[in-house]
Formats: sequence, C-alpha cells, structure tokens
Amino acid sequence: MYNYAVSFSGKTLAQNIKASIIGASGYSGAELLKILSRHKHVRVEKLFANTSAGKRIDEIYPFFAKSFDTVLEQYSVDAACASDVVFIALPSGEAMNLVPELVARGKKVIDLGGDFRFQDVASYERYYKHQHRAAHLLPQAVYGLPEWNREHIKSAQIIANPGCYPTSALLPLAPLLKEGLIESSGIAINSLSGVSGAGRSANVDLSFAEVNESVKAYKVGVHQHIPEIASVLERISGANVGVTFVPHLLPITRGIYTSIYAPAQTGLQPSDVLDVFKQYYGNEPFVRFSESVIPEIKHVNYTNYIDIGFRVYPENGHVILLSAIDNLIKGAAGQAVQNMNILFGYDETEGLL
Amino acid sequence: MYNYAVSFSGKTLAQNIKASIIGASGYSGAELLKILSRHKHVRVEKLFANTSAGKRIDEIYPFFAKSFDTVLEQYSVDAACASDVVFIALPSGEAMNLVPELVARGKKVIDLGGDFRFQDVASYERYYKHQHRAAHLLPQAVYGLPEWNREHIKSAQIIANPGCYPTSALLPLAPLLKEGLIESSGIAINSLSGVSGAGRSANVDLSFAEVNESVKAYKVGVHQHIPEIASVLERISGANVGVTFVPHLLPITRGIYTSIYAPAQTGLQPSDVLDVFKQYYGNEPFVRFSESVIPEIKHVNYTNYIDIGFRVYPENGHVILLSAIDNLIKGAAGQAVQNMNILFGYDETEGLL
Amino acid sequence: MYNYAVSFSGKTLAQNIKASIIGASGYSGAELLKILSRHKHVRVEKLFANTSAGKRIDEIYPFFAKSFDTVLEQYSVDAACASDVVFIALPSGEAMNLVPELVARGKKVIDLGGDFRFQDVASYERYYKHQHRAAHLLPQAVYGLPEWNREHIKSAQIIANPGCYPTSALLPLAPLLKEGLIESSGIAINSLSGVSGAGRSANVDLSFAEVNESVKAYKVGVHQHIPEIASVLERISGANVGVTFVPHLLPITRGIYTSIYAPAQTGLQPSDVLDVFKQYYGNEPFVRFSESVIPEIKHVNYTNYIDIGFRVYPENGHVILLSAIDNLIKGAAGQAVQNMNILFGYDETEGLL
Amino acid sequence: MYNYAVSFSGKTLAQNIKASIIGASGYSGAELLKILSRHKHVRVEKLFANTSAGKRIDEIYPFFAKSFDTVLEQYSVDAACASDVVFIALPSGEAMNLVPELVARGKKVIDLGGDFRFQDVASYERYYKHQHRAAHLLPQAVYGLPEWNREHIKSAQIIANPGCYPTSALLPLAPLLKEGLIESSGIAINSLSGVSGAGRSANVDLSFAEVNESVKAYKVGVHQHIPEIASVLERISGANVGVTFVPHLLPITRGIYTSIYAPAQTGLQPSDVLDVFKQYYGNEPFVRFSESVIPEIKHVNYTNYIDIGFRVYPENGHVILLSAIDNLIKGAAGQAVQNMNILFGYDETEGLL
Repeated sequence: MYNYAVSFSGKTLAQNIKASIIGASGYSGAELLKILSRHKHVRVEKLFANTSAGKRIDEIYPFFAKSFDTVLEQYSVDAACASDVVFIALPSGEAMNLVPELVARGKKVIDLGGDFRFQDVASYERYYKHQHRAAHLLPQAVYGLPEWNREHIKSAQIIANPGCYPTSALLPLAPLLKEGLIESSGIAINSLSGVSGAGRSANVDLSFAEVNESVKAYKVGVHQHIPEIASVLERISGANVGVTFVPHLLPITRGIYTSIYAPAQTGLQPSDVLDVFKQYYGNEPFVRFSESVIPEIKHVNYTNYIDIGFRVYPENGHVILLSAIDNLIKGAAGQAVQNMNILFGYDETEGLL
Repeated sequence: MYNYAVSFSGKTLAQNIKASIIGASGYSGAELLKILSRHKHVRVEKLFANTSAGKRIDEIYPFFAKSFDTVLEQYSVDAACASDVVFIALPSGEAMNLVPELVARGKKVIDLGGDFRFQDVASYERYYKHQHRAAHLLPQAVYGLPEWNREHIKSAQIIANPGCYPTSALLPLAPLLKEGLIESSGIAINSLSGVSGAGRSANVDLSFAEVNESVKAYKVGVHQHIPEIASVLERISGANVGVTFVPHLLPITRGIYTSIYAPAQTGLQPSDVLDVFKQYYGNEPFVRFSESVIPEIKHVNYTNYIDIGFRVYPENGHVILLSAIDNLIKGAAGQAVQNMNILFGYDETEGLL
Repeated sequence: MYNYAVSFSGKTLAQNIKASIIGASGYSGAELLKILSRHKHVRVEKLFANTSAGKRIDEIYPFFAKSFDTVLEQYSVDAACASDVVFIALPSGEAMNLVPELVARGKKVIDLGGDFRFQDVASYERYYKHQHRAAHLLPQAVYGLPEWNREHIKSAQIIANPGCYPTSALLPLAPLLKEGLIESSGIAINSLSGVSGAGRSANVDLSFAEVNESVKAYKVGVHQHIPEIASVLERISGANVGVTFVPHLLPITRGIYTSIYAPAQTGLQPSDVLDVFKQYYGNEPFVRFSESVIPEIKHVNYTNYIDIGFRVYPENGHVILLSAIDNLIKGAAGQAVQNMNILFGYDETEGLL
Repeated sequence: MYNYAVSFSGKTLAQNIKASIIGASGYSGAELLKILSRHKHVRVEKLFANTSAGKRIDEIYPFFAKSFDTVLEQYSVDAACASDVVFIALPSGEAMNLVPELVARGKKVIDLGGDFRFQDVASYERYYKHQHRAAHLLPQAVYGLPEWNREHIKSAQIIANPGCYPTSALLPLAPLLKEGLIESSGIAINSLSGVSGAGRSANVDLSFAEVNESVKAYKVGVHQHIPEIASVLERISGANVGVTFVPHLLPITRGIYTSIYAPAQTGLQPSDVLDVFKQYYGNEPFVRFSESVIPEIKHVNYTNYIDIGFRVYPENGHVILLSAIDNLIKGAAGQAVQNMNILFGYDETEGLL
C-alpha cells in the first residue's frame, strides 16, 4: 500500500536525472515537456521527433516561446542513451522497435503507448492488428498504474503507462471487484473522450467541422482498450472479468468521462462502496472520491487527479460509477511522470501539483 | 401497425387548421413555430408567452425577422380557443393548470411537458416533486409516440408528447423487449444531451463558461424520465422493466445521444435484432436503423429522424443499442407536429422533411 | 433594381430544369443538394465527385439517408450535359478546366469557386498563385451578387458566385461607397469565419483540438478575397478603393461575422446610412438591416439572409458596419441557387425560405 | 526601464506576506487563488465572498478539492486588515466602497475592477453609469500596467489593475504611438473575448445554447474600456488619441484576441515596428512579439504572456497589430500578481511561469 510519508522522504536525498522524450511533437509529448520542465530533479535532455525533426519545439507549439527553444532531433539510440530515462510518446506499434536496444543499454523506459501493456501476445496482436516484435520483453514490463502497482514500478526497467480509457475505468472498478462488491461480468463501461486523445494528426474525421455539435460512438466492441481493462481487472481480482466498453468522441479538446454500470451484490450499501474507496484510495495523492460530488471534466482538466463519484441503485441491481480525468495528464503524461517519480524515489507528486 | 399509404391519403382531402403555441418564447416553442410555418395545412394563430408578452417574436429571436413579426400575448383561454389545436411548451407543472379548461371547451391539446405522460399519479408526484392538479384527465391522455401508439393518437383529445430522453431510449428498446430478445431488467441507459434540453433560462450552471470543455452526469438515479421510460416499456412488453438511466450534460447546443447496454438472450444474433427493427420500423418515416452505420448527432440534427445502431456483444452478454435524435425536433417540436399530423389526418411527414 | 412582383410572376409559368453538381462531396456541394432537393422546379440529375466517386451520397453524409441515395460519379462532360445547369463546387483552380467545354456545349454554369470572379487575370494569378487557363472566358462571366447585378445575371452563361467573405463585406459597403457616405480608402474589414469555410479536408490545422478554444488571424494582407472585394467595390462606386482585410478562424462550424471600420464623411448621420440601406435593400428578399439590432451568427445560420447593423461613430470619424451570414448558404450554396432562380426566371426565393 | 537583474535580486531577501481576496468566488478570484497558491512568498489569508459566504471554496470549485478547503467569509474590514495586501475581484462599482477604509488602515490594495483606473471622474461616471464615491483617491491610484508604469507601481498604495481588453490593445499600440509610427486618430480596435470575461453569473445571454455556434458584437461604441484605452494612450503619447473599439462575444471560455487597424506614417517599414517593440519589450518577461508568428489564443491561454504580431500594409496605409492574451491571467489575475510582485520587491515572474 501507498505510504505517503516514505514517498516524501526521497525528496531531499534525490539525485537529479536527465530525461528524453521520443515523440515530442505530439500532444502527449508536449504535455510531458510542460510537466518535466516544472520538475525539480529533471533536466530535459533530448526531444526526438520524426517529420518535425529540425524544427524548434516553439515553432510547433508557440506556447513554449520564451521557455523552450530546443530543436527536435531525429531519433538515435546513442543520443537517447545520454539520458537516465526515456519517455516514448509514439503511436502504438513503434515503441517495440526501440525498447529492446534501450533496455539492452540499461536505460529505464516509460512507454505511453500500448506495446507493453499486455502479457498476452495473442490478445495484443488481435486488437492492435499487427505483430509484436518484442514479445520477449513483455514479462518484465510493469503496468504503470501507481495506485495498484507501486511496488513493482519502483524496480521496473520498462513501464507500460496505462491507456487513458483504462485509467478512467480501472481506478473506480478495481477496489469494488477486488472486494467482491460487484459481479465480475455484465459490467458496462461508457466512455467519452476529447479529441486530443486521438493524437495530433491530419484526419478529416477529427476536423472541427465534423466533430463540433456532434457525438459518435466508435470502435464499438473492438477497441484495443477492452482487453487492457479486462486483463488488469483479472489480475487484480483473480476472477474472469467481462466488460462491455463503448468509447465516444466528444466536441471537447481534453478530458475523459467514464460512466460504469456494474451489477451490484445484493444488499450493497453506499457506505460499503465509500469504505472500500477509503481503504484503497484514502491516502492516494491523485484520487479524489465522493458520494455527493458528481465528477465533471472541468474539475480535473490540467491536473493529474481522477475524480470518482458513485451511486448505488438497487432499483435495478446496479452500482453506477462515474469518473473524470484529463486524458493528457492522468491519462498519459502526468501518470508517466508519477511513474517516473516512483521509479527514481522522488516525491510522487513532484511536478504534478 | 403503421400504414404509409393510408396516412398519405389524408393529404388532399385535409382541411386547414389553426394552431396556437403556449410558451412560444422557449426553445421548443420557437422550434414549433419554425415547423408549423412550413406546414401546408396550418395557420399559426396565437403565440402566448409570459414575461415576453408584448414583444414581437422576432425581437426575442431575430432569426424570424422578415418571416414572423407576431406579437406574443399573455395567455387567455378565450384567445387560445380560437384555434383547433393548442401546443403547450411550458415547464412541467404548468400545463395541468390550463388543460382542463381547454379540454372542457373541446380543444385538442398537445403538451410537450411531462404533466400528462404518466398514468400513475404517485409516480409523477414522486419524481416531479409537486402535486398533480389534473389527475382526473390522465386516463384520457395518450402518449404521443407515433411508432407505438398511432391508432390511439388519431382519436386523442390530450396528447402527451414524449420526453426527449425517453424518445431516444424507447424506440431502440421497445421492439427488442416486446419480442423478448433482451431481458427486462439490468438495462443501463447512458444519455448525453445538448444544453438546449434544459430550456432557455438564466442559470449559472448552463452558462457557456461552465459547460464548455466539460461533461457531467446529473440527477443520477432520480431523473423524472426514469419512470416514463420504465412505464412505457412495461405497457409495450407486458413485463416488469428495470432501467438504470444516467443523463449527462454536454457542450453542444442540440442533440441527444443514447447508448444502451441491455442483457441479451443467449444466442442472440445480429440478424435477429435487424429483423425485429425491420418488422417494427421498416415502414416508419422517421426511424433509420442500421447494423453498420454508427449514429452521430450531426446526422440527425435539424431533422425529425431517430438513427439507431446496434451491436450484439456475446463476449459479455450484452446487446449495445445506440441512438441519436435532435432533442428539439424528434425529442420535442417535430414529434409534436408528427402527432398533430396523425390527429388531423394529414400526411405524417408534412412540415417535417 | 429588384422587382419583387415580376420575380414572383415567373413561378407558375416556369419550366422545370435538371441540375448537376460537380464536387458534391464537399460542404458546399452537400448544402447545394439540400437546397435543390427542396426546390419546386429542379430535378437533381448527377452528383459528381472525385475520390468519393462510386459511393452513395448518404454513405458520405448519412444525414441524407432515406432522402437521397444517389451514387456519386466520376465527372464526364457528357454526363454533365444532360443537365440544364451545372454547379461547380470545387477548390479554386479546377473549374477553369471544365467550364470551356460546358460553355461550348451551351450549358449554364454556376461556379462557386474563385476562377471566374476576376476581370483582371494578373490579379487572379497573383493571389491564387497559379495560371489561369480559361482567361478568354472572363469577359463573359457575370459576378453573381444578385443585389447589385441582377440584370446581368438573367442572361449570363457563366455565373461566378461571390466568395463568402466578399459577400459579407460587399453588401454593407457597396451602397455607402456608391452614395459617397464613406471615403474610398482606409477601410478596415475584420472577418471571422467558421471552419467549414476551409472545406472538408484532412488538415491538422483544422482539427478540433487545434481550433477549439482558440482564435487566429491568417493570410493577413495576402488573402485572395482582398482583390475580389476591392475590384467589385471599384466597379460599383467608380472610385479607387483601398481595403485592409484580415480573416480569422473561429471555433464554430458555420457562419461569418464581418466588422468594418470605414472613414465616414464629416457630418454623417445614422439616418443617412439607414436611408441608403432602405434605398438599395428595402425590397431585397435576403437582406435585413437595422440600426438597433446587432447581427449575430445564430440569427442567420441555416438561412440565405445577410443581417447588417451599423453605428456612426463621429468621435473617431468612423462608421462601423457589422454583418453576419451563413458561409455555406448566403456565402455559397444559397446564393448560387438565388442566382439560378434569377437565371431561369423563377421566384428568387424558391427553395431558400 | 525594466531591469531584470535587480528584480531577481529581491528573491532571496524577500519577506513573506499575507494576502486576501475579496470576491473569491468569481472567475478572477479563483484564478488569483490558483496563482497565489503557487507563490513562494505569499500565504493566502482570507477569502471573502457574498452569497457564497459560508461555503468552502472547493464546494464552489471542486477543482480545488484536496488543495484548498478554505471557507469563504463575509467581508469585514477587520478580517481583511490581517493581510498585507488585499485583492479586490468584484464587479465595478463595489471596490470604491471598500478601498477608502483599507487605505486608511495602511493596506495595499490591488483592484481588478474599473473603479480606480480613471483620473477623470466625469468619464468614469459617463461610461460606468453610476457615481464615484471615492473620487478623492483617484489621484493616488496607479494604473497597473507593469510594462509602462513599473516605477510608480513600486510605491503605490492603490493599484488599478488594467481591464482585459485595454491590456490587449495598449501593449501593441503604446510603443508605436509614443514613437510616432502611427497616427493618433482613426485607430480601429476589433476585440474578441471568451465568455469568462463576463464573470460568473446567471444570464440567459451567456448560456451555452445562446453563445455556442454564434458571434456577436456588443456595446458598440459605448463600452467602458474605450475611455480607459484612450486616456492611457494619451498619457503615454502626449497626443489626443481617437480609438474606435468594438468588442465581440465568442464561443470560447478563455482568451482575448485583438486586431488593430492603425493609420501608419508614410514609408513605415516592418523593421521600424520590430525595432520599437525590441526597444520597449525586448527585456519584458511577459511580452512576446514577432513579425512572422501570428498570435493564437491557444498559445497564451493559461499563461501571463501577451503575444503580439504585426503587418505593415502600405497598400491601404495601415499597420495591422494582432494580440492574444488569457483574459483571466494577463487580463486579470496574472497581471494583478505581477503588480504585487513589483510592489513587494519579488521577482516579477514569481508564481507566473
């Protein structure tokens, strides 16, 4: 279990480190840069990009003007190895080509993509629709959900940073499943995401005129986060888990809102749910939960918090769980830095408050 | 069952009618005016409003400039009775004060609010939180969901126009429940609504700066549309129905998106679902359904269509139903005119295509 | 001058025509289809597209499901010539390749792009940055701004439909310049446009996550609509005209808002401005102007109206002109149909109210 | 002139101070709290509110949950005087009732409203439409535009924090006017603002459904920021200044975009403008200017920067100036803290980067 006091003790003793970002021109990469630039113990060493290599980061994101004028470079393993930790913020399927060599050279890797989140290669290949070329490394990859995996993260070489949707679904579901307050099948997860979750790309379906004043579900029943959610819940609860997951695209830039309908054990009381959340998350720095406050995306945007609300609804045998996160922070870059903090013994909240 | 040919035959024989709107300054009232102004057989007689009485409709909505300059009037039953049909677009709780006298004077009434949607007074009073002062009229009120109630609508005196959320949930669920393809309890309904659904009012929670770039659930487990959905499904299917319903407020002006997770009968095939939709909706003018097209709000906005998509998901025992409507049209004013067309023997699509 | 009575007289005598659209898969093309489908005298014959050829229009825009299922075809001049009028809704630079042959075969052409809006080839080539390959046809092309060019439109073979920004700027400025109420240089035109104005294309700069919660000016001082505005004003007023024009991209889908700061003649009174608007636009079906109502995009969206407001500001020697249009309707497809109505002697408002 | 080195030297010597906020429940008040909570030398002492008194700040803004749980209090001068500096974030017209007593008791006051921005009482009363009840204090109030008034701010008792629109217009215009690169009359200022600029209030005109997908100008020629802009420019340039100013309401939450059309001196070169910006702003920590980068709101949102772009347009005798700020930060709370930093000898950027 998380121990707040110990975590803080790392602060003054901590040594400074150097970090690089592969994929710095994407939204998650840029968000990582913002967070790392505020971090007491990190110096950002290299920013790697592909088509944007040769440009300054503040040309791509003038937001950084007067703060950062680093020139993006084409990736090379030698350049990357000048850092202590390498963040990979690339589309899934690319990290697997880079990680073996980085690991061989002793670097710590935090991958924001999906390549190292699965133990089961077949499941990966079925949902991601391409072959896994570094499957031999899967056993040593650690799933970077700090609230449930903190001890393993401390000594990891490869951290697989969780997906944005899974983060929003796992944190509310895991304690209830583990403690047997809900059934392990028949769970419905309805998620809503801002457009930045799809990355920074030229795609007519993501254009303002297509997305604005509309909503659509997509990848219904076939989204790659389905097996990620199910398999992590299975590891935590020890049971076979059945989830139905439907993501929706929303006309907002940032944020994920997840509403979960889970079959409740008969007689479940609101206080049971609250007790379990207190037990698991009472000391967690980035989890806020409440019986009375309903989460809203605007309460968490630009923060590393997840907000969780719930309602027991015995009229139809459900417990309703609601959560909100910033998809680019707790759903990506923020959680990655949280993992880095654990890995290097820093205060877990450093750079994130 | 709907008979397209018969419905069309009314067209040339139809007499023209006069219609009035009570609550013409609200969003639904204004939308009604737009639709009725295109209708071949209707003359808009009176527009009633309260605080806006004395103003011209194009002062409140300059959209109408050069088309309508009618002055809004304070309501009086005598003025209303110059019309053949009276639309009431007021907040729930107000229609019950006006309907008894209109009915007594032989007027047809189409109420867009919730006052006459329930047969069960206790349920109304529990969810609407005020007393019903015209409960004696409930037995003669007809629920105006044309696809399921067309015959009764033809001879109704009082039509209770369905709620926006119920319209979006009932149309996908009803045929599957009636034909026993899904179980009647454990159904989860996740709905997303644009802000116009909350009406035109001064409310800090509806202000742009509060709603934009955010999402929130609200009235979780206590929304007044829960018993409306459940009771209509019970009448249609003959079974006790259990629904969990969570509405969410979205940063869009118009539109409702509903995602439903229903426990499927074992062995349910996609073709079963498609067949049932064909059977019930194959000839319906305003229902579009598809196994392959996923509904999007932008496909239905500014129309009277409901779009329905679905996916059978045996991996977790669910059928997923997705629907989209324009909350102000199929969810309010459009459906009200559809009901009026049925009531007066006009082509059901008149004014609505 | 526009003569409402005569225009109406064409109605009953009018013969029906066939129309085709080249570029039907873009936003303007789809909007044209919506308008033409409501038009009493038009049958839509062919829809041409390039990369979307072979698809049904309701696959690209499911909005059209149950109304239109026409299959888009690859363009051929023979197929196009089965129509009486051909609308071209292609990016500028493409119409000039098609128009010569269509004209040679006696077809009426309404081009929504910029290729035929200039009399001055050099100016076209400087701003559009490519050669004009049909410059010999420019003298016979008629600029399709009905309020100022109605007589020439009646007998045109090629109608160059005005640009969206020019429509919003010319209509307020033209009468004041012509009557000498404002000076002909030093005019500043500040325009705001929704994203649909940029067309339906895969472009990261138009993606929701880039456009939302932001505003930017673009093409400052080099936009191709600058010479279009200036040259039309020069033809109308007979003076050399100097305009500064800055377009801005806004997080809305549809609509243009133009704010103009023009040096006023000394002693100019509000009543002078109002009188001139009454003189020129008092009988115009699609121009609404007011001294007291400030235009808003929501008042004109989904209509063919332009709303014009103004304020004389002697404190700084300016008259402020404000206008709003729907960029896809009065700024494109609606005005194109208005031109077609004039060309074929129909009621000018047919299909547009 | 700003001296970066000296300003930094205050850092280690600086004593810590206590600050209170009157009007902490509004958007500017909440933003102040966010910034002050990151400030090394400030302890937030009291949060005052009126109708929200008695609630915790994280009840009103759950964003603050787990960071701040301060209870808002009803204002009393005694409670306020426990602080070294008092920020007033109230609607204009209210600060004048509180400031005299605070000043009498020796407190430093930073007023984010308009009450102390004018030297000319008549002008204030004409535009704000109410009497000034503390006019005797106007001579000692210092206009808190750090880039132009830093020396006076250091020793001020009352700082009148500039308006949001004026900040966006003054910073680009002032150096050009002072150096005579533009004429002092005929200047047109076109500003676009997000909705948070109107404050947190229940107002149907600010509701999402009214603001979304629309734009409107408002207070055309009568906005209270007109005399603020003109009078500050007059003090800086020594000339009589004529500005035309039109604010517009936009469907964004935060941000101001200002486009200025100023008559340029004959022969003005881009390098002249650039040189003047370098001269005045080259060492300014929060001003970014560029000849090539066009400002965008997303580049400055959530920062204290103003971005300035420009283009000399001799074709029509104009220089075009473009600027973007976050209305709640550089346009309100950020600039207020910048002023506080100057006042107390802290590094001017403390809490703001």
